[in-house]
Amino acid sequence: MTTKMTTLFGIQHPIIQGGMAWVADAQLAAAVSNAGGLGMISAYGLSGQELRAQIHACRELTDKPFGVNIMLMSPQAQEAAQIAAQEKVAVVTTSAGLPTRFMPIWRDAGIKVVPVVANVAMAKRVARDGASAVIAEGYEAGGHVGELTTLTLVPQIADAVDLPVIAAGGIADGRGLAAVLMLGAAGAQVGTRFLAADECGIPQCFKDEVLRARDTDTMVAGKRRGIQVRALKNSYMQELAEQEMNPHVSNAELEQHGSGALWRAVKEGDMVTGCIMAGQAAALVKETMPAAQIIAQIMQGVKALMPA
Amino acid sequence: MTTKMTTLFGIQHPIIQGGMAWVADAQLAAAVSNAGGLGMISAYGLSGQELRAQIHACRELTDKPFGVNIMLMSPQAQEAAQIAAQEKVAVVTTSAGLPTRFMPIWRDAGIKVVPVVANVAMAKRVARDGASAVIAEGYEAGGHVGELTTLTLVPQIADAVDLPVIAAGGIADGRGLAAVLMLGAAGAQVGTRFLAADECGIPQCFKDEVLRARDTDTMVAGKRRGIQVRALKNSYMQELAEQEMNPHVSNAELEQHGSGALWRAVKEGDMVTGCIMAGQAAALVKETMPAAQIIAQIMQGVKALMPA
Repeated sequence: MTTKMTTLFGIQHPIIQGGMAWVADAQLAAAVSNAGGLGMISAYGLSGQELRAQIHACRELTDKPFGVNIMLMSPQAQEAAQIAAQEKVAVVTTSAGLPTRFMPIWRDAGIKVVPVVANVAMAKRVARDGASAVIAEGYEAGGHVGELTTLTLVPQIADAVDLPVIAAGGIADGRGLAAVLMLGAAGAQVGTRFLAADECGIPQCFKDEVLRARDTDTMVAGKRRGIQVRALKNSYMQELAEQEMNPHVSNAELEQHGSGALWRAVKEGDMVTGCIMAGQAAALVKETMPAAQIIAQIMQGVKALMPA
Repeated sequence: MTTKMTTLFGIQHPIIQGGMAWVADAQLAAAVSNAGGLGMISAYGLSGQELRAQIHACRELTDKPFGVNIMLMSPQAQEAAQIAAQEKVAVVTTSAGLPTRFMPIWRDAGIKVVPVVANVAMAKRVARDGASAVIAEGYEAGGHVGELTTLTLVPQIADAVDLPVIAAGGIADGRGLAAVLMLGAAGAQVGTRFLAADECGIPQCFKDEVLRARDTDTMVAGKRRGIQVRALKNSYMQELAEQEMNPHVSNAELEQHGSGALWRAVKEGDMVTGCIMAGQAAALVKETMPAAQIIAQIMQGVKALMPA
């Protein structure tokens, strides 16, 4: 399938893997890129040396394009931005902020910059700053989310900017990809479904929670601190929601509660006090399989719905 | 276009007009039905006599099928249910609850019952109770909303029940309808866009607010009382959100604050202390026009995207 997205990145299928913090590593990224999608490495929490090692490891595993996601609010953003430029990775996606300050060094390195946006104003701003495409991410996504849903956000972004729009949030199968193509997207970012990829290095208990998740098993919390996050419902998330409704709990205490929660889930397999980030699409994820098979299934689904 | 929805209702286009409380009257319903969609009258707040008069007025204006929406939490639900049965309206849609107790009288009257559902469990339950179809309504809709977005809810409902699924929430143009058809829906319920129909009797200032609305101009409040509502941001909604976060404000006070707010917006044109219910799709609504033209535009858009 050829879209503005496949042409921009020089890839076979209009699917980019979400750059999930602590999750998206060289092994997963290479598997996705080798299967014809665009694999992503998350720079979140990595030292400069570790990020460089991940990029090099990915180049050992694939000769296809891949990218690096930089969470702009993270303490490592500045160093990660420089390393991405030095390493001339094919693509940088950015989240949680405006990448304006890094655009010149990335432009000079020939990198395609694709910011995640949650509203029209942000899309227009990054288009002016020289973005190559935008990822329009809806409320149903896992991790940090805005308020607009994918169904209403994507057509508005497509109307607002003259760039390829990649839809994110809620897309786990061919139906979802076909739907966002109808909305004017040139492809989709898929996160939650790749949690169940064989090449995804999260603990089995995390994968099991995703596979078990039903429709109403995710929730959003963290709004009081301005960092609204979607994850599977568990003790951690329910306590966070209660605490932020309690005026006697300070923002500092909330921050303390949240500290290290994603790490505990991803690296320690703590399904009780860890933050099991996943989107509403978790309910559509039924089994683990290789990343290549995930992509093949999604594309089969799309082609069955859109014969032309 | 023929879908399971057009066949079920015997209509030309797979579009049902939302049964918006205080808004959806005989005039709007007849305009939609005459244009080949399925028009709906809201029973909310009407006396038995008034509802009967609305049904009769609609029959004067159209010989096509139309329906009545019954909000099950309303004090008039019981009487409205009986009148719908006596009048043998073609379709009843229900919202905010389970219609189980009314199914026998509606079945005896040959009425097609189409409940609004917000999750899989509810869809399965109403299917067992004998529903003819379900309306899967997402978080982006106006008025009372659940947590699942249209993009993730529709395919799950389509997988869960062997009934036509009508998608609701976020659909205002051909792109939205095409998207939900890809997700497995047999058609769409459109509410917010019909607020801007010439035949919609709301005050011009309400229509102007919808036309002016940008992407981030709706918000959700009311969760503490278990009645989460989406409406345009204004003083009323912002105060409601603040009050429900304040533990010193009782639920009784919250109820007092909410009382009559929708009426004030719809009937008195009060855009400050009224509740201007509208969905995220408001940002996609740019101009007023006859209901027939709204439907024609949506169908043109769909046909351009789905040539087959």
